[in-house]
Amino acid sequence: MQIAQSLQQIQPSYIREILQAASQPDVISLAGGLPAIEQLPNDLLTKVVETLPQQTALFQYGLTAGYAPLLTYLNHHYQVPSDHSGVICTGSQQALDIVARTFIDSGDHIVLEAPSYLGALQVFGLAQAQIHNVQQRQDGPDLKQLEALFSQHNVKLFYAVPDFHNPTGICWSLTTRQQVAELCKQFNVGFIEDVPYRALRFSGEDLPLVSSFCPEQSVVLRSFSKIASPGIRLGYATAQESWINAMIKVKQATDLHSSLPMQALLLGLLKDKRFDTHLMHIRQLYQERYHHLRQALLEQLPAGNYTVSPVCGGMFLWLLLPPCNVDKVAQAALENGVAVVPSSVFYQQRGEAQPALRLNFTYASKIQLEIAAKRLTQVLVNLI
Amino acid sequence: MQIAQSLQQIQPSYIREILQAASQPDVISLAGGLPAIEQLPNDLLTKVVETLPQQTALFQYGLTAGYAPLLTYLNHHYQVPSDHSGVICTGSQQALDIVARTFIDSGDHIVLEAPSYLGALQVFGLAQAQIHNVQQRQDGPDLKQLEALFSQHNVKLFYAVPDFHNPTGICWSLTTRQQVAELCKQFNVGFIEDVPYRALRFSGEDLPLVSSFCPEQSVVLRSFSKIASPGIRLGYATAQESWINAMIKVKQATDLHSSLPMQALLLGLLKDKRFDTHLMHIRQLYQERYHHLRQALLEQLPAGNYTVSPVCGGMFLWLLLPPCNVDKVAQAALENGVAVVPSSVFYQQRGEAQPALRLNFTYASKIQLEIAAKRLTQVLVNLI
Repeated sequence: MQIAQSLQQIQPSYIREILQAASQPDVISLAGGLPAIEQLPNDLLTKVVETLPQQTALFQYGLTAGYAPLLTYLNHHYQVPSDHSGVICTGSQQALDIVARTFIDSGDHIVLEAPSYLGALQVFGLAQAQIHNVQQRQDGPDLKQLEALFSQHNVKLFYAVPDFHNPTGICWSLTTRQQVAELCKQFNVGFIEDVPYRALRFSGEDLPLVSSFCPEQSVVLRSFSKIASPGIRLGYATAQESWINAMIKVKQATDLHSSLPMQALLLGLLKDKRFDTHLMHIRQLYQERYHHLRQALLEQLPAGNYTVSPVCGGMFLWLLLPPCNVDKVAQAALENGVAVVPSSVFYQQRGEAQPALRLNFTYASKIQLEIAAKRLTQVLVNLI
Repeated sequence: MQIAQSLQQIQPSYIREILQAASQPDVISLAGGLPAIEQLPNDLLTKVVETLPQQTALFQYGLTAGYAPLLTYLNHHYQVPSDHSGVICTGSQQALDIVARTFIDSGDHIVLEAPSYLGALQVFGLAQAQIHNVQQRQDGPDLKQLEALFSQHNVKLFYAVPDFHNPTGICWSLTTRQQVAELCKQFNVGFIEDVPYRALRFSGEDLPLVSSFCPEQSVVLRSFSKIASPGIRLGYATAQESWINAMIKVKQATDLHSSLPMQALLLGLLKDKRFDTHLMHIRQLYQERYHHLRQALLEQLPAGNYTVSPVCGGMFLWLLLPPCNVDKVAQAALENGVAVVPSSVFYQQRGEAQPALRLNFTYASKIQLEIAAKRLTQVLVNLI
């Protein structure tokens, strides 16, 4: 059978493709957005897992929206507006895919930040959306450009990662949040707020969700991959009820529902007091690792040519490079034992990429981060 | 945001929609395709579940194709051709959805059996395929009609459930299997062989997969919902490697991968000798329940007006009715405390449905089946 046209233009994820190479024992991976999963307290995990076999209903079919006790817990925990509802998905990646399938017709205009989350490029590419890009500044998207895009095109939705952006680590300012919300209301644009890193702030103060300023325009996508476990594949989408009902119809056709024992496991983890301690612990750990990597890069890289902007949370540093072929740099780095992601993969048009590397600081240990910085510096100094 | 056009034509699943009504304590449900999950040995489940927390890697991100030890086991267990490969999905429902997204462009011609699996109608509806129907006979699809469809239209794929069809329970004969394979080869039509009930044969002899006669044309979709657990949401698709690679690209964008702890759980179950005993046990139990329900219906329903064709396995009986409004019959049955599925939901054009009810015999106990048959008979005798 011939492959569908929508698929022929889609690039497989660079990050997923190099996952195997990056997991070789002699390679230090700063490539994936991997949490330090070994930090999840094993006694807590064991305690919750052992309760599962007794709950026979978890092994039967369940409701498409999700495991009711988990939905109730999350709606309360995240203070979801009373006229909104939610659906549990197989990771927030699936929630995003379902948003695209629920709302996007081929050719619909949408806006993404540039650079943008790779998985969003894939999802909206498959949906055959007409993608426009808005440039990022230090405090979020370029508002003038965003307004111009909204006024020039019949834009259906704007997808963004306002908290500790992937790949750049940027966190939108309060003013930008309010202004983006206003623009979405003014031009009746749906705002898809993807917040997988929101709970990973390690400095500064929490800012309100962008969608809190435009709840009727918004879908919020939450992930439990970064705070609990990616392997269990659970995410959560909330929005006004009619939108969620439409998304549930798509999810029915997609996979009926997400794994029930995993939903019960997640609930057990979230409800336990030790989970809050775990969250505080990983925030602190990630902050230490972040400082360690950034410091090592600042010390080793030749001054003036490189920028490593500070971040207040999340998982990534964005290392700006002098003009170069970033794909070759990433390839050479892998050959020198450190896996990184070249900026080119985060742009719809690879040629438009600013030369940069995305560096994950949450997965490798401090010692590994130090070695990785050395290996990366060797490559950069040689190639550039 | 406006809902996408592809979604506006999709009906939510009747079966999923009435799941809650059907689970009221005073209602006996013959509606869902639910296995007798309480039969899964709890000591086996507990033993395997307790091994999970120690395997930290299960809680991290994994490969999109699936958990490697499970893939290896399944390829061997199902004797997958050496030049084929596989991908683990979130239920075989997701495998079907991924097939549609990988191969179907809007307007592509496909063939489904009539009646057909409801989830397939949803999936191919979302994919905006041009759906043609082939009538079912006692030994499988009408071959003349199938050949005519293949020769008249540029048919991309034929989706079918040859073993204990949902909803009719029909099992294709050996000759039909060979002839369908020949037609698929002759007209270069992809054959999507969905076999969720294949391991649930309780009489007669196993027949070869249709795809064994046309492996290069085929995708086989397997489910672990009916033999192990639906709640864990795991299925498995196999086909030639280039097709599976394309499907993996779609799965990347869809949800990165399916739950790893659930994949390890499934492997633990399948590898244990007690699982074979469990399978033998549920086959026998389902046979008893099938006989019990069929016998009760034959004894109680007025002779001549009703047909309850025998089946050799699976989960469903197809009760043919005299001319009537099947939706009203199903509604009246629900009000009388028995949930059934009207034939209308299994047809793309509801008006074309032969009057019938789908009755599940695997979930309710023998006593419940007896009461259900009485309640159903009351309704039928009153209404028809």
